[in-house]
Amino acid sequence: MARPITFLSDYGLADEFVGVVHGVIARLCPDARIIDLGHGVPRQDVQAGARMLERALPYTPAGVHLAVVDPEVGAGRRAVALRTQEADRLLVGPDNGLLVPAAERFGGVVEAVEISASAWRLEPVSATFHGRDVFAPAAAALATGRALDALGPPATAPVELDWVAPTREAAGGLGDVIALDRFGNATTNLPGAWADGGVVEVAGVRVPVRRTYADVGSGEAVAVVDSEGRVEIAVRDGSAARVLGVAPGMPVWLVRG
Amino acid sequence: MARPITFLSDYGLADEFVGVVHGVIARLCPDARIIDLGHGVPRQDVQAGARMLERALPYTPAGVHLAVVDPEVGAGRRAVALRTQEADRLLVGPDNGLLVPAAERFGGVVEAVEISASAWRLEPVSATFHGRDVFAPAAAALATGRALDALGPPATAPVELDWVAPTREAAGGLGDVIALDRFGNATTNLPGAWADGGVVEVAGVRVPVRRTYADVGSGEAVAVVDSEGRVEIAVRDGSAARVLGVAPGMPVWLVRG
Amino acid sequence: MARPITFLSDYGLADEFVGVVHGVIARLCPDARIIDLGHGVPRQDVQAGARMLERALPYTPAGVHLAVVDPEVGAGRRAVALRTQEADRLLVGPDNGLLVPAAERFGGVVEAVEISASAWRLEPVSATFHGRDVFAPAAAALATGRALDALGPPATAPVELDWVAPTREAAGGLGDVIALDRFGNATTNLPGAWADGGVVEVAGVRVPVRRTYADVGSGEAVAVVDSEGRVEIAVRDGSAARVLGVAPGMPVWLVRG
Repeated sequence: MARPITFLSDYGLADEFVGVVHGVIARLCPDARIIDLGHGVPRQDVQAGARMLERALPYTPAGVHLAVVDPEVGAGRRAVALRTQEADRLLVGPDNGLLVPAAERFGGVVEAVEISASAWRLEPVSATFHGRDVFAPAAAALATGRALDALGPPATAPVELDWVAPTREAAGGLGDVIALDRFGNATTNLPGAWADGGVVEVAGVRVPVRRTYADVGSGEAVAVVDSEGRVEIAVRDGSAARVLGVAPGMPVWLVRG
Repeated sequence: MARPITFLSDYGLADEFVGVVHGVIARLCPDARIIDLGHGVPRQDVQAGARMLERALPYTPAGVHLAVVDPEVGAGRRAVALRTQEADRLLVGPDNGLLVPAAERFGGVVEAVEISASAWRLEPVSATFHGRDVFAPAAAALATGRALDALGPPATAPVELDWVAPTREAAGGLGDVIALDRFGNATTNLPGAWADGGVVEVAGVRVPVRRTYADVGSGEAVAVVDSEGRVEIAVRDGSAARVLGVAPGMPVWLVRG
Repeated sequence: MARPITFLSDYGLADEFVGVVHGVIARLCPDARIIDLGHGVPRQDVQAGARMLERALPYTPAGVHLAVVDPEVGAGRRAVALRTQEADRLLVGPDNGLLVPAAERFGGVVEAVEISASAWRLEPVSATFHGRDVFAPAAAALATGRALDALGPPATAPVELDWVAPTREAAGGLGDVIALDRFGNATTNLPGAWADGGVVEVAGVRVPVRRTYADVGSGEAVAVVDSEGRVEIAVRDGSAARVLGVAPGMPVWLVRG
C-alpha cells in the first residue's frame, strides 16, 4: 500500500501544471492517493504557502507532503526532502523555508536530503518546472516506500523563514493582518487566547470580539477566534476587506475586555 | 470497501479548506473515494447550493453526500445526517434546507439524526469551520459503514427552503432566471416541456427557442432546453449576461410557438 | 484493475459540470482513477485545449484520455474515440481537432470509432452536455476494458486543426505568442533550440534570452526556454502581459546571439 501524498502549490488551476504533476506521480506510483491541499497560494508567496501548509498538515494522514512555491526555481536554491521527528512525515519541496513551519508541527526536521539529482528525476530537468521534473518523482518514490536517503546526499539544516510574531502587551497585544480569505475575512497572527471578549482596532475602526459571526447584525464588523485559534476580523454577510479596508500587513491592536 | 463520498461547498479553491476536509476524511477512512461536486457555490447562497446538489446527485454513485453552505455556522442551526427513502443515499450537512431538494430526488428523508455531538467530531469544535470539525468526520464514519443512528440522536423534520415555482399560463408560462453559469448562460426554472418552439421574453428582448446553440448565428440570442430539461437563455459564442443583461431573479415569459 | 482516466475540459470549476462527469464515470467504473488535467481551457477554444492536452499527455499514465472543448455540441459534429499507434492510448471527445495533436505524440491515430450512439450513453442525450451523456460513459466503458469497437462503428479520419507554425529565418525566427499563463508569462511557438542566447522582439521591446528568471533583476523582462522547450517571455516577479502588453496572437521575432 502506497503512502498517501498531499500536494500544495501556487500553480493555480487555469493551466495543466497541477494535472501534469498528478500524472507524473501516477506513472511512478499508480496506487498513491493524492490529496490536493490547494493550489491557490498567491504567486511566489513562500510565506503564505508556508502558513497554509502548516495549518493544513495536522489534518492530513501521515505520508508524503509535496509543496511547491518556488520563486528561485532554476537558480541555485536546493531541492530537499525532509523527515520530521514525530509521525514520520516526509516533506518534499524547494529549500526556501516553505516546509519548515509545517515540520515544526511534528517536532521539527530530523533528516534532510538534497534531491536535485535523484535517480527518479525526469531528464532533461527544465529550468522552470521542477514540480514536474524533480519534486513529483521524488514524492512518488517516497510514496512507494523508498527511504529518504535513497533520494540523495544528506543536506545541512534547511533554510528558515523570518516570521513576524505578535507582541504581548499589558492591555492585550499588537499583531498584523496576515492574510485575506476569499470571503474578505482577515486572519491575524494574534492568538485567540489573548482576546477574551475585548475589542480589536484595525484600519481606524474598533471591532468587538464575539464568539460567532451571528453575534452581530448583518453588515456589522466582528472579530472571532478562527478555526486555527487566531483572531479573525470579519463583516457578517460582507467582506471585511472591502467594508473596513483591511489588508495584509496592517497592524491590529487587541484590547482585552 | 468504503462507500464513496461526494463533496459540495462554497469554500472555493483559493484556500486550504477543501484540502483539509479531504485530509480529515482520509485519516478516518483511508480508502473512501471522494468526488468533488464543486466548491464554487456563491458564498453562503444556500439556495444555489441546494439546486447544484439536486442537479448533480442523480449522476453520482450511491453513498455519502457531504454538502456545506453554512451561513449560520457557530449559531444555533442543527447539523444533520439524513437517509433517503430510495437508493440508501446518506446526506450530511447543516440543517438549513441545503440537503432537502436533493433528498427529494430519492423519495425524501426517512431518517434524520443530529450530529453536532457525534463521537467522531474533532474537539475543540471551532466556531467557524464545521466542515472540518463536524461534517467531515461524520461523513467518514458513514463511509466506513457506520449506521446513521451511531452518529447522534434522532432529529425532527429537516428545515426546508422556500422555492420559487414557475407559473403555467395558457400562452406558455412565467418563471425566473435562477442562475448564471460561467459562460454567462442564464438558467431559468421554466420546464423545457412548456417551450415547444416559441419565444421567451427577458430583459426587454424576445429570444427564439431552438434546439441547439448552433441553430442561430454567432452573437445571436437563443433559448434552448438545457441538460436538466429547463429553458436556458444563451448568446452563441457570447455571454447572455453581458449581451442581454439577464441576471438571477429576472422574470422570464414563455410564449409557445 | 481499471485503466486510469485523464480529464481535460473548458467547464471551469464554478459549476457542478466536472463533478457530474466524475460521478457518471464512478457509477460505471467505480475503481477508475480520474486525473484532472485541468478545466481552465478558455471557453470553446479548441486550439488552446488541444495544445494543453498535447503538452500534458506524455506525462500521464497510459489509459483513457477524455477531453471536452466542444463549441459545436448538439450540432452535427461527430463524437469519437481514438486509439494511438504507440502506447495504446485511448482518446475520447468531440471530433473537432481537439484530440489529434495529442494523438500525434503517440504515433498518430490507428483506429477511430463514432460513439454518439454507444450503448453506454445516458438517454435522453441532452443537446448541451455531451460530456455527461456521451463522453463520460464512453470513457468509463473503455476504462473497464471494453474494446474500442464495442463503442460504435468505425469512423473516417478525424478532423485536424489548422496550426500556425513558426518560420525559421537566417537570423533566428518568427513566431507568435500562443498563450498567457496565470502569471502573465507568454508562451510562444518558437522552439527553444532556435534561441541560443539572443534576444526576442515583441510588442515593440527587445527582451534578452537567459537561462532562468533569476538571471535578470526584479521587474525586468526576460525570455527563457520553458518546460516544453519553447521560448517564453516573462517579467521577473511581475506579469509580462501587464508590463509589456504581450497578448496571444502577437508576432515574436527571435534574433540569435
